[in-house]
Amino acid sequence: GGQHRIAVIAGDGIGQEVVPEGLRALEMAAKRFDIDLAFTEFDWGCGHYERHGRMMPEDGIDRLASFDAIFLGAVGWPTVPDHVSLWGLLIPIRRRFEQYVNLRPVRLFEGVPCPLAGKKPGDIDFLIVRENVEGEYSEIGGRLYAGTEREMAVQESIFTRFGVDRILRYAFELARSRPKRHLTSATKSNGIIHTMPFWDERVKAMATAYPDVRLDQYHIDILTAHFVRCPERFDVVVGSNLFGDILSDLGPAVTGTIGIAPSANLNPERRWPSMFEPVHGSAPDIAGQGIANPIGQIWSGAMLLDHLGYPEAGAAIVAAIERILKSGRVLTRDMGGSASTEEQGKAIAAEI
Amino acid sequence: GGQHRIAVIAGDGIGQEVVPEGLRALEMAAKRFDIDLAFTEFDWGCGHYERHGRMMPEDGIDRLASFDAIFLGAVGWPTVPDHVSLWGLLIPIRRRFEQYVNLRPVRLFEGVPCPLAGKKPGDIDFLIVRENVEGEYSEIGGRLYAGTEREMAVQESIFTRFGVDRILRYAFELARSRPKRHLTSATKSNGIIHTMPFWDERVKAMATAYPDVRLDQYHIDILTAHFVRCPERFDVVVGSNLFGDILSDLGPAVTGTIGIAPSANLNPERRWPSMFEPVHGSAPDIAGQGIANPIGQIWSGAMLLDHLGYPEAGAAIVAAIERILKSGRVLTRDMGGSASTEEQGKAIAAEI
Ligand SMILES: CC(C)[C@H](C(=O)O)[C@@H](O)C(=O)O
Ligand SMILES: CC(C)[C@H](C(=O)O)[C@@H](O)C(=O)O
Repeated sequence: GGQHRIAVIAGDGIGQEVVPEGLRALEMAAKRFDIDLAFTEFDWGCGHYERHGRMMPEDGIDRLASFDAIFLGAVGWPTVPDHVSLWGLLIPIRRRFEQYVNLRPVRLFEGVPCPLAGKKPGDIDFLIVRENVEGEYSEIGGRLYAGTEREMAVQESIFTRFGVDRILRYAFELARSRPKRHLTSATKSNGIIHTMPFWDERVKAMATAYPDVRLDQYHIDILTAHFVRCPERFDVVVGSNLFGDILSDLGPAVTGTIGIAPSANLNPERRWPSMFEPVHGSAPDIAGQGIANPIGQIWSGAMLLDHLGYPEAGAAIVAAIERILKSGRVLTRDMGGSASTEEQGKAIAAEI
Repeated sequence: GGQHRIAVIAGDGIGQEVVPEGLRALEMAAKRFDIDLAFTEFDWGCGHYERHGRMMPEDGIDRLASFDAIFLGAVGWPTVPDHVSLWGLLIPIRRRFEQYVNLRPVRLFEGVPCPLAGKKPGDIDFLIVRENVEGEYSEIGGRLYAGTEREMAVQESIFTRFGVDRILRYAFELARSRPKRHLTSATKSNGIIHTMPFWDERVKAMATAYPDVRLDQYHIDILTAHFVRCPERFDVVVGSNLFGDILSDLGPAVTGTIGIAPSANLNPERRWPSMFEPVHGSAPDIAGQGIANPIGQIWSGAMLLDHLGYPEAGAAIVAAIERILKSGRVLTRDMGGSASTEEQGKAIAAEI
């Protein structure tokens, strides 16, 4: 109960086009389930960078801290180097608000053409649990002999027992809560010899507390092959920041389009706001045409409601997505149709 | 001309089963094209580790140095931790012999069931060029507060201008030599902010010397999605040690099975022996059953002949593989048939 304050950052490119559809669905669900949501929009992103030399104001993080959740579109535009834009907005939010879980569902819906031969809706339905604040994404590193023939760049990956254990615990608990009770862990211990064997050790240590969870461990290279060859085998998949990132684009591609994939950047302790955003980026190649798929954004809204304590409202949004896709009436171009972003969004909102 | 001395390391698991078939094909091609090959076998691997506490003798690298090429099966067995076995045999060979190019063809053959809907043989035919001696695979790193609650593991990635430029130059030259003249570079510059933007810079610098090569640059996450959604778009794909590793398992999975995928670890300057090995590993799950696909090993033999200066002999092996697959007569289990490793190997040898 009570009012929930949501910070909205549409961001760049198609973020501007899909966020309004996400809000449309959220408002519809709020009305139907009598939830009090108050939205505050922030015009941060690459436009803000061009005007002010920063992706968000200096006190941006502080201003977000009192919200109950953040609803984000996409960040990045060709006018600003990607490492500058992302590390100026998206990544600081994940870190400062200890959103150490990035939860990304992967599901094959009826009505969405699947690139794999012979797969049926229901065959593919798993969750990726991505470590979201440490690991390979690290500010530590730099250059030696910059600008000369001897130039080199070094990059540190850092995995802490604290950081690895908390994401593994989340993943084991999640696996335990599902009917299949199956967890797959991704590493690359034969190649990346300091951090990855450490992750494997922590998996082994934690597994003793979850004898009821069936555990598989794969190297990331062969795991990407299994995603294509037998995606139906997976239930909960846990990986580092980088491996989770890769698997959560590959998984949705296998189900037809990354345009529908949502994500929840969670601070499970609820000390800070969590953030909900589609898996896709700002897509400069199609931005401004009104053809982007808004479903990743809308489904992220469903995860937001879930997190705020309204699982029925979240489920109603997902059910509406499911029915609209199944009907085949309204599909954006990436799903083989010709609907606009707005048509797709309105059809789903009406169905809620 | 002259005699060519080949070091043979069958290694572990199915390496023991597929190497004899690789040798059968090599011997057949040598006979037909009148090539003088002399094989010397080394029983190195995890068995050697169990007996002597090392994957190969202390002077192993020195003993290999005078050979003209190395023909390797697979390394790794559950009795030895992967980072110990691989860094005790495979990876030192790549490094000490400056095999900085790992070349991995990906091709959809007629007769091999493709997991993707609607793809025809010929649609998928590209080359992965993987940086093979630096980058994310680094010995530098370790632990702090080992064994305590505060434990952490750190891992350094190191990219040198020398190392990046030489692999990019190889990739650009290779792209230039092919009809499509198309090069795709994989990075993750929005997440891995020190090393990956450096790679992108070097790509940009080198591209000015190759205005005739069409260049695409993708982040690794969306690139894995494109491998599934539109593999026909690729021609030459270049990536770091880790990204090349991932893409070269995913690519073959998209063409049906990683059992057929070969690789050439090349020292292009020919100062040291190059090494030829299948992309797959030792596969403990199917080892000892005689059902492994030997084609990755046989095709690696074709790349070996190519490298030694016998492109026609190499092409004859690939053509034999192609005809046998197309006939559908003899297919191992991973390709939907029931042939044994030996039957598959003999059929191809007879066809050469
Ligand atoms: C076994 C392993 C160390 C190796 C690698 O990662 O290089 C393998 O996956 C490969 O692709 O050759
Ligand atoms: C934009 C980029 C930094 C980001 C990431 O790698 O985390 C994105 O790919 C994602 O998956 O959320």
